[in-house]
Amino acid sequence: MREFILYSRKGRTDSNFTTLHDAGRLDVVYECIVASLFLSHGLRRDVVFNAFLSGPPSPPLVLEVDGATLYDVRTDQDTWKDILQETLSRRPHPGVTIRKTGFEALLKEKAKGATIFVLEERGQNVERIDLGNHPVFVLGDHIGLPKTVESFALRHGEKISLGKQPYLAASCITILNFLMDNRRTI
Amino acid sequence: MREFILYSRKGRTDSNFTTLHDAGRLDVVYECIVASLFLSHGLRRDVVFNAFLSGPPSPPLVLEVDGATLYDVRTDQDTWKDILQETLSRRPHPGVTIRKTGFEALLKEKAKGATIFVLEERGQNVERIDLGNHPVFVLGDHIGLPKTVESFALRHGEKISLGKQPYLAASCITILNFLMDNRRTI
Repeated sequence: MREFILYSRKGRTDSNFTTLHDAGRLDVVYECIVASLFLSHGLRRDVVFNAFLSGPPSPPLVLEVDGATLYDVRTDQDTWKDILQETLSRRPHPGVTIRKTGFEALLKEKAKGATIFVLEERGQNVERIDLGNHPVFVLGDHIGLPKTVESFALRHGEKISLGKQPYLAASCITILNFLMDNRRTI
Repeated sequence: MREFILYSRKGRTDSNFTTLHDAGRLDVVYECIVASLFLSHGLRRDVVFNAFLSGPPSPPLVLEVDGATLYDVRTDQDTWKDILQETLSRRPHPGVTIRKTGFEALLKEKAKGATIFVLEERGQNVERIDLGNHPVFVLGDHIGLPKTVESFALRHGEKISLGKQPYLAASCITILNFLMDNRRTI
């Protein structure tokens, strides 16, 4: 099993938006959902994606997308704009839930029986790390993780890096899925 | 330098569409553009992305996005819907061009001074391949490459595989960029 947690600094916490981009970059959340869960013509049933939304009007919310129970979905943005708006209006979609939880509580919950890794350019190269059987990867959005959040996360896990290039959050997830699929450090 | 060629079986060849998804899956073309060219807060100046569009009404068209000259762009879908519609109306954007070229002519042109690799599940694992300094990767869209196209491409290059998982086209590009960034076979 693998989990991803995206920390979205400005991700909107109600359904009052016209485009995902203007909803505090929920388009980044959407891209990360696709990168986490979709294969060509199939879903990754062993992956859970979480977005920690800290934008207005009622943060913090945790959006969870669970590959085990997700269905009736496609990869396109319009599909996910609808699902996110429904979910943020408290009309959940199968496999997609939302709840009010702080970041520390979320991380403590996830740390049980799992290993936390925080993606950070100055972290140890992923090639030198054993990711284990149940890694939980914590990523920032386009702005990055707030310092206090990073410090807290590092009390539960360790920093890892994908190399020198600063990848988009969704690209980090795709690369981590690839490395895990091939089950060895590069 | 790296190049990608996405073979889009149904990608629309005029600007008469409302959503990228309904334009013969130009949303897949959009996702591949982002995967090819965008880093966090920056562009890959050494990458050229090509989409071979064979959908109605006037195929074949080759859409080229050149990282060296691209500017005034963002990663979101609305930005690229506008750019693609403008380009398909013959009002090109800096770094984005369109021209009428057949697939064989395109591949012959690209093969000069470069090495062609065709992504295919039954190909040789990328870990055993030297990708060289100027690889050109040929990928199918969600339907895959037509048999005749694959046969032709294989006269100019070799089949490679990213392992057992059937990745989305855009994920393949992200993974290839990662492998090339780290400049070694995994």
